[in-house]
Amino acid sequence: MLELTQTLNASDRVHHEIEEVLATGRTAWQQYLFFKSRAHGVCVALDGDLQSCAADEGLYHEALVHPAMLSHPAPERVLIMGGGEGATLREVLRHPTVTEVVMVDLDEEFVGLCKSLIPDWAEGAWNDPRLELRHEDIAAYLDHASGGFDVVVGDLIDASDAASPAAGLYGPEFYARLATALAPGAVVATQAGPLDPTGLAGHRRVRASLNGVFSRVLSYGVYVPSFTGLWGYTIAGTADLLPGGVAERHALFELRTQERGIGLVHTGPEALAAAFALPRALTRVLEAGA
Amino acid sequence: MLELTQTLNASDRVHHEIEEVLATGRTAWQQYLFFKSRAHGVCVALDGDLQSCAADEGLYHEALVHPAMLSHPAPERVLIMGGGEGATLREVLRHPTVTEVVMVDLDEEFVGLCKSLIPDWAEGAWNDPRLELRHEDIAAYLDHASGGFDVVVGDLIDASDAASPAAGLYGPEFYARLATALAPGAVVATQAGPLDPTGLAGHRRVRASLNGVFSRVLSYGVYVPSFTGLWGYTIAGTADLLPGGVAERHALFELRTQERGIGLVHTGPEALAAAFALPRALTRVLEAGA
Amino acid sequence: MLELTQTLNASDRVHHEIEEVLATGRTAWQQYLFFKSRAHGVCVALDGDLQSCAADEGLYHEALVHPAMLSHPAPERVLIMGGGEGATLREVLRHPTVTEVVMVDLDEEFVGLCKSLIPDWAEGAWNDPRLELRHEDIAAYLDHASGGFDVVVGDLIDASDAASPAAGLYGPEFYARLATALAPGAVVATQAGPLDPTGLAGHRRVRASLNGVFSRVLSYGVYVPSFTGLWGYTIAGTADLLPGGVAERHALFELRTQERGIGLVHTGPEALAAAFALPRALTRVLEAGA
Amino acid sequence: MLELTQTLNASDRVHHEIEEVLATGRTAWQQYLFFKSRAHGVCVALDGDLQSCAADEGLYHEALVHPAMLSHPAPERVLIMGGGEGATLREVLRHPTVTEVVMVDLDEEFVGLCKSLIPDWAEGAWNDPRLELRHEDIAAYLDHASGGFDVVVGDLIDASDAASPAAGLYGPEFYARLATALAPGAVVATQAGPLDPTGLAGHRRVRASLNGVFSRVLSYGVYVPSFTGLWGYTIAGTADLLPGGVAERHALFELRTQERGIGLVHTGPEALAAAFALPRALTRVLEAGA
Repeated sequence: MLELTQTLNASDRVHHEIEEVLATGRTAWQQYLFFKSRAHGVCVALDGDLQSCAADEGLYHEALVHPAMLSHPAPERVLIMGGGEGATLREVLRHPTVTEVVMVDLDEEFVGLCKSLIPDWAEGAWNDPRLELRHEDIAAYLDHASGGFDVVVGDLIDASDAASPAAGLYGPEFYARLATALAPGAVVATQAGPLDPTGLAGHRRVRASLNGVFSRVLSYGVYVPSFTGLWGYTIAGTADLLPGGVAERHALFELRTQERGIGLVHTGPEALAAAFALPRALTRVLEAGA
Repeated sequence: MLELTQTLNASDRVHHEIEEVLATGRTAWQQYLFFKSRAHGVCVALDGDLQSCAADEGLYHEALVHPAMLSHPAPERVLIMGGGEGATLREVLRHPTVTEVVMVDLDEEFVGLCKSLIPDWAEGAWNDPRLELRHEDIAAYLDHASGGFDVVVGDLIDASDAASPAAGLYGPEFYARLATALAPGAVVATQAGPLDPTGLAGHRRVRASLNGVFSRVLSYGVYVPSFTGLWGYTIAGTADLLPGGVAERHALFELRTQERGIGLVHTGPEALAAAFALPRALTRVLEAGA
Repeated sequence: MLELTQTLNASDRVHHEIEEVLATGRTAWQQYLFFKSRAHGVCVALDGDLQSCAADEGLYHEALVHPAMLSHPAPERVLIMGGGEGATLREVLRHPTVTEVVMVDLDEEFVGLCKSLIPDWAEGAWNDPRLELRHEDIAAYLDHASGGFDVVVGDLIDASDAASPAAGLYGPEFYARLATALAPGAVVATQAGPLDPTGLAGHRRVRASLNGVFSRVLSYGVYVPSFTGLWGYTIAGTADLLPGGVAERHALFELRTQERGIGLVHTGPEALAAAFALPRALTRVLEAGA
Repeated sequence: MLELTQTLNASDRVHHEIEEVLATGRTAWQQYLFFKSRAHGVCVALDGDLQSCAADEGLYHEALVHPAMLSHPAPERVLIMGGGEGATLREVLRHPTVTEVVMVDLDEEFVGLCKSLIPDWAEGAWNDPRLELRHEDIAAYLDHASGGFDVVVGDLIDASDAASPAAGLYGPEFYARLATALAPGAVVATQAGPLDPTGLAGHRRVRASLNGVFSRVLSYGVYVPSFTGLWGYTIAGTADLLPGGVAERHALFELRTQERGIGLVHTGPEALAAAFALPRALTRVLEAGA
């Protein structure tokens, strides 16, 4: 039996049984593994870390994309950082206000593998005329980006560990550079690692980086079964980003999904609004780091 | 290295490293294990299944107790089924409206172990004059119970498996019997197993049982880190139980915690209200079974 | 972290960490996995079962081949059943008496993968003019084999489980058919599953099958680190096969390796002779089945 | 499910399922765990390391004791270092030449637990009038030992890791001190850690220590199923200790077991003689360290 084993925290380890390896190898940038899981369907791992599984990628990607997109009154130009599977792109393009999406994913070979091995995840998004797909380092891209993005969605590999090669993509300098590419009123969303109370260092680092650049930073979390954990995200923007509590968020998300005709298949406006209502056991630790 | 291994679903298994075994043995009813975990503090397992850990039992027990207690305008008489650790009792007694709590836990020896090994979990509740502690079979107790309970809280061992010896405590006959012990307008809460989309059979069985007896049944879930999963609960009652959406629930929980002077240390009124806003990926499956 | 997990017996499971997957996929007959292990070098698994690792395949294959070859005074015609990695062939060809080797391995694609991915294991054997390599079912081959083999070496996948698809290749009918392809005085060797005292059913089945056909059947075992166990083999032949005890075996193996100029790099004549001196804890159970 | 997990080497980890914990706790010196295993019966672990299991402790202890005892022409005074389970003592006392056994095990509480929890392992040896049982540090004991031991058997906890607290008990100074307590022609045996080719450092350290003190040092190994490995031992003594090869050893062990009327239930004279015939893959590495 083949298993993908993930360390969750100082005590716990989860073993995912692999039903069948579909493809594995190494691109110029990372080691990839596409496999089938009885519980979670086709899954993708990079450098030994689980990225997404068919059974709940909809949950993960809706939660990543829509709070930011719905917080913005009319997102036209969107930047996706990473997101090789094509599912972040799929969700962004659901918003009819969008006129242009620049997706920057360094690893052309990996994106190619996703196009051929999990084509249905993108639901045709790869061929959308609004897409400009670029394969270059996101930091390098920002040096020459035309800018003016209304929404930025960060779907980069996790960097809970400060020593990770991706850690720079969650640091204060990177976000300061990103800020120069934003339109007024822009919203920036990023996945931000697990919200495990015993391992919040990664998420707190992202928050600290964003707090140096944006007036308002909010954390939220959604339980993603294949990650066996509460997955954390942040959105950041101007001082009036998502004001109020769960009632106001719910009302806003409900209104804008209706206006834009977007069905949230896996989450829903109420669940997305609720995702920001983290338990105090978590917010105490998160805010201690602010 | 000693590990407690738990099967999560058809593919996944979590290994909890045990830092130190504090006590283990067999009572007349079950095998117990108290141990220390680096990530989760002192933990309790029964018959090989993790029950609670110090680091997040507050989250688990607040979520179990308060939605039901706050949904009732003035809960006076409360019945706790199981709950040997004393933490469910602790949370119930926080409500100043309570005049009498009957706690029925079959296993006197296990309750004694909790009193001596994890006394701080109860925060003095064992000595509260409002408590009547009984060690007998809950089904047998119901045959001679004086009745008139305003709130019932079920903190019995999990029975996701229909073949479990505890399965009867989640079945329709049991709830029908329980109904005879209720005051008008009573609310019944119970832990109801993990909300894992690939293993919802257990939770759906509880819902189905409750649906046969109560006019309104609601599911909610809270991510409990030591369980590496979204833990499911249900509350059931009359047709007007917790009407409306997340905004109304939030307002109600906020109001009543203030009225009763209850601080929800681990969850909070907004987080508890949000816990009912399950993602559609789950509600679709749950309601398909209704 | 990717792991190959193997069940050892009713209680134990070993996890082999995979450093890198080199190749994986499915031939017409089986699923293959070539991977790198920090402890064992390049390893090969078929249908989830570890077959051989670079670090100790020399130990495994010397132990499989040489006791039979050295027990025969002058093995000329040799049949290898299975043995896709080419290492069994390599060891057989070391004996200068050999004039012809027929190797029958059903899975042409797997043999091709071994030729390209682990070519050094064969040490040139694939090009030896004495080799006739056939890809067909071994049972079908025996129906039309020219016969007259002096030594037969079975390096087929393990069939500890009577329900395995390979179980027929270890059964009495198969060995009866094999007997018709043998020269007088022939010796038949086969790998015969782990010599785990709590799981000897597989090895005993092989012995029982051989006992129905051959006058003398001997078991022996060598500890193979990557298998985390004592691996079992049998040799079978006429009544005068390997007479005496460890002293006589040692003398014979020493004499014939010297005569034939064969260096046993991983085992040695004394270690091979000793491999037949199984502890009584094992022989008691093995002979109970005779 | 409770599991005892042991790291075997740089890649492999074995999980032993625990059927039932019989006793666990901490003495003044170490953490103990007595448990039942489906495959191996009652097992004992100290500080998280498996020590012995009922199903194969006979194999382990016969292999530890008898090569040394049979190598000596008439062992009268015997020193056992460690050996709390009482099984080493049991094997030593089988030799009718023995007139006095001093057993020094630091941990009186652990020995008491063995006496009460696994009394049958000792087969009455605890009450043998030849036994002097002492609970003190073995190094301290040697400072005042009367000396003149014919055989010493080291059954101390493993110290494969040079940083282990027990490492001193396998070092050159300890053996030099031990040498002063020996009678002429004495034989010293000790368990010496796993003979895993990728982790021979521990065994080689023991050999190096002994080589500095004794004229002849021999390694041997026996596969112990519950250890999932080939377990290593050494015997050391004067230049004429166990001369010759497997034939001579076999003859000697056969002769002396008959003379002394000792039945080797789990191993046998031939298997013990064979245990010294290690494969060249191991001896190359072991001797490279001489």
